[in-house]
Amino acid sequence: MSTDKFDFEKGKHLRYEEYFQGENNGLFIKIKELLFSKQSKYQRIDIFDSYDVGRVFALDGITQTIEKFEFMYHEMLVHVAMFSHPNPEKVLIIGGGDGGTLREVLRHRCVKEAVMCEIDVEVVLAAKEYLPSLSCAMNDERASLLFKDGAAYVSEFEDYFDVIIIDSTDPTAGEGGHLFTVDFYKRCSRALTDEGLLVAHTENPVYDANWLKMAYSRIEEAFEVTKMYTGFSPQYPSGFWTYTAGSKGNNPSVKVRDDESLESQLKYYNGQIHRACFILPVFLNDIIESKS
Amino acid sequence: MSTDKFDFEKGKHLRYEEYFQGENNGLFIKIKELLFSKQSKYQRIDIFDSYDVGRVFALDGITQTIEKFEFMYHEMLVHVAMFSHPNPEKVLIIGGGDGGTLREVLRHRCVKEAVMCEIDVEVVLAAKEYLPSLSCAMNDERASLLFKDGAAYVSEFEDYFDVIIIDSTDPTAGEGGHLFTVDFYKRCSRALTDEGLLVAHTENPVYDANWLKMAYSRIEEAFEVTKMYTGFSPQYPSGFWTYTAGSKGNNPSVKVRDDESLESQLKYYNGQIHRACFILPVFLNDIIESKS
Repeated sequence: MSTDKFDFEKGKHLRYEEYFQGENNGLFIKIKELLFSKQSKYQRIDIFDSYDVGRVFALDGITQTIEKFEFMYHEMLVHVAMFSHPNPEKVLIIGGGDGGTLREVLRHRCVKEAVMCEIDVEVVLAAKEYLPSLSCAMNDERASLLFKDGAAYVSEFEDYFDVIIIDSTDPTAGEGGHLFTVDFYKRCSRALTDEGLLVAHTENPVYDANWLKMAYSRIEEAFEVTKMYTGFSPQYPSGFWTYTAGSKGNNPSVKVRDDESLESQLKYYNGQIHRACFILPVFLNDIIESKS
Repeated sequence: MSTDKFDFEKGKHLRYEEYFQGENNGLFIKIKELLFSKQSKYQRIDIFDSYDVGRVFALDGITQTIEKFEFMYHEMLVHVAMFSHPNPEKVLIIGGGDGGTLREVLRHRCVKEAVMCEIDVEVVLAAKEYLPSLSCAMNDERASLLFKDGAAYVSEFEDYFDVIIIDSTDPTAGEGGHLFTVDFYKRCSRALTDEGLLVAHTENPVYDANWLKMAYSRIEEAFEVTKMYTGFSPQYPSGFWTYTAGSKGNNPSVKVRDDESLESQLKYYNGQIHRACFILPVFLNDIIESKS
C-alpha cells in the first residue's frame, strides 16, 4: 500500500489495494482509520483498521498481516515444525516483526530461548503500538529481539538452534530478497542441531508458481529432507498458501510430541491437520517435482 | 459485476470488482475484453476476458468461474462424491450452467446418464459461445440439458439417481436461494438410491460462516451421514472453499473405486486428497459442531 495507490470510492472511503501479479488482479479493503504510515530505512510500513477484518499491516504495499485471519498463517508456520521436533528449546525467527510468529513459538512451554531477528526496528515499534494482539509476547523473558540482518546473524551459529522459522517478506518486496539463496539456507542448516528443522513460507502456486518452485528447490539443495505443506491463508493472494520444511533427517510430516493444554487452545492446527497438510494437490506436486 | 460497479483505473482499463461481505472487502480483475453482458429473466450474466486468469463468468456480480482456477472447484465438487460411489451411472446436476461440472462428471466412463437442470437457458447459451473450455461436454450423448427449476424437477424422482450435485449460485445471489431448504435436501435424498450421495458447495468460513453453518445443518437434517470437506478455490472469496456431502449410509470420505486412466489426467484431486480434504481446521469444525 502506498498513498498513490489509495483510491476514493464514491468519494467516501479510502481504500487499500494490493496487486497480486502485475496490476491486473488484486484485493481491496476499505480503510476505516489509517493508524500508522512511515517510510523506514528499509521499506514503507502501513497499518490501518478495517471494517470487517481487523487491523491490516502492509510492507511496501504487500499485506503481511490481517488481524482476523493471521492465526491460520502463524499457527501453520510455527506449529508443524515445533511439533515435529521432540524438544524444541532454542528457536530462531528471521523476520516476523509483527510478533505473531514469536507469540505462537512461546506458547510451547519447552522453549527456553526464542530469538527474533528482524532487520527493521520500525516494524517492531509499530507492531508494539498498533498490533497488540500480535506483538503481545515480545516482553516474554524467554524472547530476545535483535534488529539486524538475519542472514548475517545465522552465520554466527553452528549446531545450536532446534527450529529456525523464516517469516520474512517476499523476495519481490521489502528487505527479504537476500533471505532466499541456497547459501542462506545452508547457513541455516549449519546453525541447526542434527534434529533441527527449518520452516519457511513459500508463496502460492497460483500467482507465484515460479518463485514457489525456486524457493522449494533451494531449500531442497540445502537439506537432506524437504517437504512442502499447505494451509488456507485468506490474508494472502489466492488464499492458497504453501510452506516448506527442511531437516537433516527428521520427517516434518510426523508429529512427535503432544501438548494437550496448548493444542486445546489452537484454532487451526491439530494433529490431523499436521498429517493432512502434507498431501498436495496434483498440480502443486507437479510444480515442485518438475525439473525445469 | 454490474456496469455501475465498473471503475476506471487511471482512465485506462475497465475493472471488474466483486464484493465479499458488504462492500468493505473484495477482489478486482482488470478486464481485457467484455465478451457478453445480458440481463436474463433471472439474473445478470457477464463474461469477460482478463489478462492473467483467462475468462471470467459472473452472475449478478458474483464470480462463478475463472478459467485459470476452475479445475480446483470442479474437480473437488465432482470427484469426491463420484469416487465414493461404487458405480455412479445416473447423475443429476442442479445448476452448473457453465458446464464445468458436467464436463467432470462425464469423464467417468461408468456414467450412462447425466442430467443438468439449469434454470437459465441464457447462461448455457452464453457458456456454449464464450466458455468452450467449460461447456465442451454439453454435446456428449449421455448428457441431457433441461432448463427448469431444479427443486421441482428433483421432486419427480424416487430411488433413481446415484449422485446429485448442487452447483448453484449462492442463496444471496441469483436464482439459487430456494435450493438451500431442508425440504429441498429431503427431496434430493428421496430421489437418490440407497447408495446415493448428494454433494453441494457450502461457501467459505471466513466471510460467510453463518450461511456455511446453515447449509451444513440443513443437509445434516435431511441425510443419515453428512460430512464437510475443503479445497483451495482461488476463484472464490478467501480461497477457502467448503463442500458438504450427504448420504443414506455411504461414507463420502472413503474412496471406493479406482479409475487409473481418469485419475492420471486430473490436476487437483487424487486418492490422497480425497482422504485429506475431510480433515477440517479446528475453527471450521467448531463452526459446524456448534449448536447455535
